[in-house]
Amino acid sequence: MGREAKAAARGPKAALVTDSSVAGLYLEPALESLRAARLEATSAIVPPGEGSKTLAQAGELYDRMLRAGLDRGSVVVALGGGVVTDLAGFVAATYMRGIAWVAVPTTLLGQVDASVGGKTAVDHPECKNLIGAFHQPSAVLCDVATLATLPDEELRNGLAETVKHAMIRDARLFEELGRRAETILARDPAVLEPIVARNVRIKADVVAADERESDTRRILNYGHTIGHALESLLGLTHGRAVALGMMAEARMAERRGLVGRAVVERQKALLERFSLPVSLPTGADAERCLTIMRHDKKGEAGRMRFVLPEAIGRVRVVEDVTDDEIRAALLSLAG
Amino acid sequence: MGREAKAAARGPKAALVTDSSVAGLYLEPALESLRAARLEATSAIVPPGEGSKTLAQAGELYDRMLRAGLDRGSVVVALGGGVVTDLAGFVAATYMRGIAWVAVPTTLLGQVDASVGGKTAVDHPECKNLIGAFHQPSAVLCDVATLATLPDEELRNGLAETVKHAMIRDARLFEELGRRAETILARDPAVLEPIVARNVRIKADVVAADERESDTRRILNYGHTIGHALESLLGLTHGRAVALGMMAEARMAERRGLVGRAVVERQKALLERFSLPVSLPTGADAERCLTIMRHDKKGEAGRMRFVLPEAIGRVRVVEDVTDDEIRAALLSLAG
Repeated sequence: MGREAKAAARGPKAALVTDSSVAGLYLEPALESLRAARLEATSAIVPPGEGSKTLAQAGELYDRMLRAGLDRGSVVVALGGGVVTDLAGFVAATYMRGIAWVAVPTTLLGQVDASVGGKTAVDHPECKNLIGAFHQPSAVLCDVATLATLPDEELRNGLAETVKHAMIRDARLFEELGRRAETILARDPAVLEPIVARNVRIKADVVAADERESDTRRILNYGHTIGHALESLLGLTHGRAVALGMMAEARMAERRGLVGRAVVERQKALLERFSLPVSLPTGADAERCLTIMRHDKKGEAGRMRFVLPEAIGRVRVVEDVTDDEIRAALLSLAG
Repeated sequence: MGREAKAAARGPKAALVTDSSVAGLYLEPALESLRAARLEATSAIVPPGEGSKTLAQAGELYDRMLRAGLDRGSVVVALGGGVVTDLAGFVAATYMRGIAWVAVPTTLLGQVDASVGGKTAVDHPECKNLIGAFHQPSAVLCDVATLATLPDEELRNGLAETVKHAMIRDARLFEELGRRAETILARDPAVLEPIVARNVRIKADVVAADERESDTRRILNYGHTIGHALESLLGLTHGRAVALGMMAEARMAERRGLVGRAVVERQKALLERFSLPVSLPTGADAERCLTIMRHDKKGEAGRMRFVLPEAIGRVRVVEDVTDDEIRAALLSLAG
């Protein structure tokens, strides 16, 4: 990564931002790589987990970078999962009104989703990603070897987005995920590498068409409109919430006659193959979900948009979904 | 301003950000104007002064806006001086990764300088404007009638930037400032309006050529390389510091043979006409100034750039200024 960071910098200084879990595995080789590229690197290690995506944590990073003498020509290297890349990317976006950064995602979710597209953010206590900026990294480096040490639940978070990418854009990828599920779950790098590359391509294509999420980019929200509400209501991991969101939204599409049952069942089977949930034993409180969704930032001027499948690999955005349809979709999750 | 805010919004909601001094004068008419344009306006009033340009104050504004239900289609209206427009602009730049904003500067400094160019920021305890973003306002509304109530010292802050604009780009404006000094100081709106318009045009032209301050935009730093150091070292107001910075940098240019003494003396006479300082009775600690300047964010990779006059209305950027030249320039300020 040293070479890419050096290319992004217009000066000698770099800040390596990571979390303590990742630091234990990769801090030394990462610093070594930066030094070998003749960058003066200072490291900033944040606690692991969403709790680090705060304005206060960003404030500590600004302190650290200022003390280390980072200037407008310096570069930030974000080494870790989505929390680290979101946080470090936001700090890079706002330090001296924006300096260069390089993302080195070490989770599957980071590699296939979070690092591509230039979205950076920290959380507000009452709203995830409320405070943020669009700030493209100079480079995104994905090394699938880092996935070998990834906890299962983290792998699932990435697989949910991978299934989403297949559902919105790529029937062939969908087939391949089913066919190679076993080797994917075994983290075989030879299988993971082309799959990660394919996902990055899908996300990058969608984002390049529309960086600011006005239109095309919205299709990336498949499974997320309901998923985000379930995530905050039930405290589920992102991957589990998105899997349930995709199931609810696929059933919504089925009820509208947009898509046949076979597609819904194929999506269900693939999610189950990756040990992602497709039903809720406890059910979901539909009214509280609706309240959260109305607060959710995806809405503008009160309209709620849904991304609904029309086939494996094809979706459409609809704006006329009624509250009753949402209630029925949530009810369909009851296991 | 209601009309411009409504045009910038893609939804019904607006947040009016101002400080308590300005609120006493203009809050009600401003809210009325927003309501008349059919915007649901929530107001957020911050304490006056640089102390409000903090990440913590930005945090309170995010809270307020979230509670008022502002979404991506909402608009922020910043009504006040540079502190309010910098802060509210930064909050608009980072709320939900950037929403629209309208600047309504009520100080001369805000009208001729701070609101034009898209720079937004809050301060770090150890570095002004460290945390910020480029985020162009949808509109900048300058009403010179608001200058009638402006304290003298605030007027001087704006006049210093006006003299700077004349020095870097506009010999005719320089003449006019001298000829009309009396009516300017009396805040005659008929005289101020074309002068404000001329200044906005100069700043906008420079910024449009180069939004990100790589090259052309640097000429706006005339008087600021030394001025910023004096500002933080001596606790001077921005206008006084910039006036002294322009004097020091003009004398630096004179010592280099870039400009004749007559130009330096004309600049001096105009600054004095506006009761801006041209010398320091106490002198300035050159070594401490140098230390501050080296820390100043204008530098990149160690190089310090100076903007030096070649004539009234024309400057050049130089990078080869020695520490001894800087010491001599600071010494020249001793009154």
